[in-house]
Amino acid sequence: MKTKAYAAASAKAPLSPISIDRREPGPKDLAIDILYCGVCHSDLHTARGEWPGILYPCVPGHEIIGTVSAVGKDVTKFKVGDVAAVGCMVDSCRQCRSCEDDLEQYCEGPHSFTGTYNGAAKGGLPNTFGGYSKNIVVDEHFVLSVRHSKEQLGAAAPLLCAGITTWSPLRHWNVGPGKKVGIVGIGGLGHMGVKLAHALGAHVVAFTTSDSKRQAALDLGADEVVVSKNREEMVAHTGTFDFILDTVAASHNLDALTSLLKRDGTLTLVGVPEEPHPSPSVFPLVFGRKAIAGSLIGGIAETQEMLDFCAERGITCDVEMIAMKDIDHAYDRMLKSDVKYRFVIDMATLD
Amino acid sequence: MKTKAYAAASAKAPLSPISIDRREPGPKDLAIDILYCGVCHSDLHTARGEWPGILYPCVPGHEIIGTVSAVGKDVTKFKVGDVAAVGCMVDSCRQCRSCEDDLEQYCEGPHSFTGTYNGAAKGGLPNTFGGYSKNIVVDEHFVLSVRHSKEQLGAAAPLLCAGITTWSPLRHWNVGPGKKVGIVGIGGLGHMGVKLAHALGAHVVAFTTSDSKRQAALDLGADEVVVSKNREEMVAHTGTFDFILDTVAASHNLDALTSLLKRDGTLTLVGVPEEPHPSPSVFPLVFGRKAIAGSLIGGIAETQEMLDFCAERGITCDVEMIAMKDIDHAYDRMLKSDVKYRFVIDMATLD
Repeated sequence: MKTKAYAAASAKAPLSPISIDRREPGPKDLAIDILYCGVCHSDLHTARGEWPGILYPCVPGHEIIGTVSAVGKDVTKFKVGDVAAVGCMVDSCRQCRSCEDDLEQYCEGPHSFTGTYNGAAKGGLPNTFGGYSKNIVVDEHFVLSVRHSKEQLGAAAPLLCAGITTWSPLRHWNVGPGKKVGIVGIGGLGHMGVKLAHALGAHVVAFTTSDSKRQAALDLGADEVVVSKNREEMVAHTGTFDFILDTVAASHNLDALTSLLKRDGTLTLVGVPEEPHPSPSVFPLVFGRKAIAGSLIGGIAETQEMLDFCAERGITCDVEMIAMKDIDHAYDRMLKSDVKYRFVIDMATLD
Repeated sequence: MKTKAYAAASAKAPLSPISIDRREPGPKDLAIDILYCGVCHSDLHTARGEWPGILYPCVPGHEIIGTVSAVGKDVTKFKVGDVAAVGCMVDSCRQCRSCEDDLEQYCEGPHSFTGTYNGAAKGGLPNTFGGYSKNIVVDEHFVLSVRHSKEQLGAAAPLLCAGITTWSPLRHWNVGPGKKVGIVGIGGLGHMGVKLAHALGAHVVAFTTSDSKRQAALDLGADEVVVSKNREEMVAHTGTFDFILDTVAASHNLDALTSLLKRDGTLTLVGVPEEPHPSPSVFPLVFGRKAIAGSLIGGIAETQEMLDFCAERGITCDVEMIAMKDIDHAYDRMLKSDVKYRFVIDMATLD
């Protein structure tokens, strides 16, 4: 099954049109005609070979929304015409403890989960190809239902990575009414962290390095904004946070954040920095029984929960729609943080 | 009220006899004739001025067991003749959230908790003086009941710091039957970690850098022993631990330990290293929702719980009894880890 896509032919090449093979849908598979695909920073890292083990051609994209165009005979959750979504995973071992716990992102099988792109493909094909393409074939277990309105679908696409990556830790660490929660970094992930923590009923404090983002963070739903370079503003919050979600992938000082946690508070990182963070001080951890933790995207069940929660409340991402051919320009703008807050590719522009 | 004690007159001076003042017991105070005092590494750091803010003369000692010699009129929990104990704290604000939660060690009052030595003393006296002395006067809230037999009292003294410092995190992180637990470092704290985790019903793996401690760790109750310098032995345990308690205060590689945790596992540090640990990798945290946390001694209620648990099961520390005059020699041996596993001063030798 041939499909049009956009691929990087090598780490140095700009993305360009390509024809790729998709497997024929098996009994549990469905084929999806892709309407929109969000643009994640991981796409850029992968396409440009900034991570090890990238296979080329590389078709990025793991924030996928489209309509079901075919279903295998054993598919039960979807029918042709349904709006469906695919996130960062298209398979996992299905039998380890984490898979059984609906946390496929932590799959403990021999190959961990299968990434939506640059993973091990099925059906004799090479590595998996992602959502920068006209369609995709995925096992129904890894496909989500989307209840947003037709007009919201483009802006809903980044929920599949930016949304779930912030939702999962917010839920796991019980963010809700009565909790004071910090969201560090107001970008693709952070802006969703603010929206979701606010919708969950928490008192939300947005941390940004840039005074210019103050009003924007309030508009997203933050109750307070702290410019993290302003020591006085930071110190005023010492020992008051139940939970801080840190979405900043660049190396930075974590002590400034652990000191803001209450006793038993947790600072959770969702970014893996290229250069290690400065070694965090053990002192605030020991003297407040605090923790520094990590979290990775989210499981399929909690992704569905998040999508349903967002659909009910009309929550989407703040996006800028682009044409497929402008992807390299979008990458360059992402590197300058020149996007509020996520690019989404209108896949109709791939024709 | 004058009492004999042993003090460091300065950071450079050996400890020597001194006469100190204790306050007259107030309505809620009791006076304790000290029988035994354990020797903690903190005593050495403090006496020798290795930590900031040490006041001299300095009388260390916060693993104290003795008999009640006087009680104030409002004391309800103790009577003269009772066996009683004092640990690392002799006061706290009593009204913050942590104090109300029976976690006085995390007191959020303006001065945190009052240390048993080098803290702010009451009754117009200078800084607090610890257990290297013939008696001590303490508010009954900070005094523990001891149900061990008379013969066990010397070996029970280090429960007041080494015991509770390991007990509190083992309990907080729900160590018990069905859990695989690592104890890193087989010294004063670690040997109690092994004994207590074993008594709580966990599968206990002791980590030591020294092959020579293998049998000793098994004798303490470890189910398995891993020599942490042996990469093969370490790798065999990858991803299998629910909880790891790290008692090593020296700077060391934490990644070797976080990689051994299961998903959602926690590595808890109870030592604050002088030099920071190498910056821990964020990768195992994010890819397994793992945490690095800290823990500080324990609250008064959980200290009593631990003492009662140990008394019921006949658990004490492995100690070497010394005379008061030999304290500097004991410090020097501690620096060479030449003690199995805790020195205890027989306070009768102070006369």
